[in-house]
Amino acid sequence: MIQIDGNRLNASLQELARIGATPGGGVTRLTLSDEDKAARDLLARWMTAAGLEVRIDDFGNMSGIRPGTEDAPPVYLGSHIDTVVRGGRYDGALGVMGGLEVIRTLNDHNVQTRLPVSIVNWTNEEGVRFEPATLCSGAIAGAFTRDYVYGIRDRHGYVFREELERIGYLGDESNRPLPASAYLELHIEQGPVLEAAGKPVGVVGGIVGIIWSEVVVTGQSDHAGPSPMPLRKDALMAASTMIASIEKLALDRDDVAVATVGRIRVEPDTINTIPGKAVFSVDFRHPDGETIEALSTDLNRLGESIGRARGVDITVERIWTSTPTPFDPTVVDAIRIACQRLDLPYEEFWSGAGHDAKHLADLVPSGMIFVRSEAGVSHAEIEHSTSEDITAGGNVLLHTALQLAG
Amino acid sequence: MIQIDGNRLNASLQELARIGATPGGGVTRLTLSDEDKAARDLLARWMTAAGLEVRIDDFGNMSGIRPGTEDAPPVYLGSHIDTVVRGGRYDGALGVMGGLEVIRTLNDHNVQTRLPVSIVNWTNEEGVRFEPATLCSGAIAGAFTRDYVYGIRDRHGYVFREELERIGYLGDESNRPLPASAYLELHIEQGPVLEAAGKPVGVVGGIVGIIWSEVVVTGQSDHAGPSPMPLRKDALMAASTMIASIEKLALDRDDVAVATVGRIRVEPDTINTIPGKAVFSVDFRHPDGETIEALSTDLNRLGESIGRARGVDITVERIWTSTPTPFDPTVVDAIRIACQRLDLPYEEFWSGAGHDAKHLADLVPSGMIFVRSEAGVSHAEIEHSTSEDITAGGNVLLHTALQLAG
Repeated sequence: MIQIDGNRLNASLQELARIGATPGGGVTRLTLSDEDKAARDLLARWMTAAGLEVRIDDFGNMSGIRPGTEDAPPVYLGSHIDTVVRGGRYDGALGVMGGLEVIRTLNDHNVQTRLPVSIVNWTNEEGVRFEPATLCSGAIAGAFTRDYVYGIRDRHGYVFREELERIGYLGDESNRPLPASAYLELHIEQGPVLEAAGKPVGVVGGIVGIIWSEVVVTGQSDHAGPSPMPLRKDALMAASTMIASIEKLALDRDDVAVATVGRIRVEPDTINTIPGKAVFSVDFRHPDGETIEALSTDLNRLGESIGRARGVDITVERIWTSTPTPFDPTVVDAIRIACQRLDLPYEEFWSGAGHDAKHLADLVPSGMIFVRSEAGVSHAEIEHSTSEDITAGGNVLLHTALQLAG
Repeated sequence: MIQIDGNRLNASLQELARIGATPGGGVTRLTLSDEDKAARDLLARWMTAAGLEVRIDDFGNMSGIRPGTEDAPPVYLGSHIDTVVRGGRYDGALGVMGGLEVIRTLNDHNVQTRLPVSIVNWTNEEGVRFEPATLCSGAIAGAFTRDYVYGIRDRHGYVFREELERIGYLGDESNRPLPASAYLELHIEQGPVLEAAGKPVGVVGGIVGIIWSEVVVTGQSDHAGPSPMPLRKDALMAASTMIASIEKLALDRDDVAVATVGRIRVEPDTINTIPGKAVFSVDFRHPDGETIEALSTDLNRLGESIGRARGVDITVERIWTSTPTPFDPTVVDAIRIACQRLDLPYEEFWSGAGHDAKHLADLVPSGMIFVRSEAGVSHAEIEHSTSEDITAGGNVLLHTALQLAG
């Protein structure tokens, strides 16, 4: 059975990681920086060497098509090569190098596919330099207008379009990587599920829905001394009870619901004053749209009941909703079959984080393959996946692409 | 039975409140400010008019002695006339104006006491401009050296001693209000107990002990998406469970134990990241020394058990201890008898906040009388006590002083 060259894939990943390498063993390669340009130039050289014509679109998205026997929309394989500050060597890069390795393997074996196979590098997935994240896959999918994207400034005032032009990657709308027959993204898991399950690869069912809410608890600020406990309206005590219950909402719901309170502040925030106000965020995630709405309803009820019981005012305001994105069943099934053919143990679950594939799924049949992350750590210099797992992921990508491209 | 002139006491309070009056109906009269000087000058004029020679000590503490038939240490009646920023008209001022009213009443009725009766205005009780609070009663009691007090700077760099000299209130060590036969402090309650009990005055048993601790919870920071709930080490979820249990520690202990978590922060404090670290303060207060130590031990145990159960590291560090200060039983009994003679309903409880009387109690038999605070509010412009309650408090001060001065 045809297989990728695992050594070549791992070597390419490590060579790419030299661009923007940090002393701590990670990578800082912010979107449209000099490091991003250097990495893009290297990718372009590799693409050309693999016989691909490098196409740059009006958002700097890079793609290259390996023709099939039919003149039809390609199967795209991709991800991104920008990173966060002091990020890792694998997040994003794996999907682009994985796609390149598939092309190289098809070349090595003179494989003729029915549909064209293409690779793609999306601009500004991380959203660290230019907010928001998954910007240019989103722009392709119509989530953001071109004027909006072009006008975004980083925190030093540099403008997206000018920076895109500066590094020489402002291309043409006609080069957008569309239409497509399918989109496949190989990515590190960025979570602990595969490690806990002891399996190298994951078949991703979709990208979870997210609801963000802000909770404001208004009680009565007072001196920490003279108020007996039963006469207090302590905003933080009410908030803490509510936060502990929010954890229970997720735990009691099922195995995949998650709830995070990432931000909290109290007023006046002094050691000897009962907090009169507490404000915190709630992030609920779940694959099922109805379930995540039910969690949100539970949160409202929790606020009402704790507010009533404690004589404090609790408001819950929803500030952002992202509906669940199930991946295309045909694509998911192709990934599953690829794992089985390769005799690789796999776990099926949904991605808790967003990816470029979320936007692509709005346009074309899409799917994702996860590779085990050591300790589930990502966005950190110590981010790591073994070369064996990377090779396994590359082979799943190859055999999924072969099924979809015919 | 001899009574104070309630109208005069209330009028003096309101006249004093004009100095540093705020648009919101309160007072800003920071220690050693021009407003403090103007208020001191007014007090000095009133003292002189009441036949008292104004004595200024080396900390600016002002006192004036009304001689008794014996040349013995006086019974001191006092408090402070400095305020917080946008504070109220009663906190502190009531004790000084109450003492002045007692002197005026004794004069009006030509009362000859056996012991001298003196009033005192302590410098820098609030500790807002120059930290810490109860600075110059503490200096008298040996809690702070003179060099330490003199060198304290406010946040603009102004030095205590220079400011004391600037406003003309740097006096002589020989004028310290010592020795004393007793110390009495009339003060607003600054809490809701008397209002809840429907009583105008309180007999204060002492000043509660306080233990401050800092709790640090160290878990694992991670993306809010990909980590299933059971695999998380969420520092804030652990902290919230602990804070809710801290409230229960106080509630379960008895009616007077109080626990406050006034400060909290998490890291990295972003909406879509599981907090890896949570740091919060704990303030326990109780009249009984052994009980407050037991609460502190309970806090340590709570940290250990929650840390173990959740796989996070929890450290509890004690950062400050103030032992309980019971007031002198003879003085407390005299206050109780005064209330009974005046047929005033009273409540007996401990002060949850510190006062100058805490330092004085280390030196001389001391006691405090509380006056009902509307809604328990203090350190705020809306701080209020009714003129009837103020008059009641002034009469309790008079009749306690009469018992102690013979």
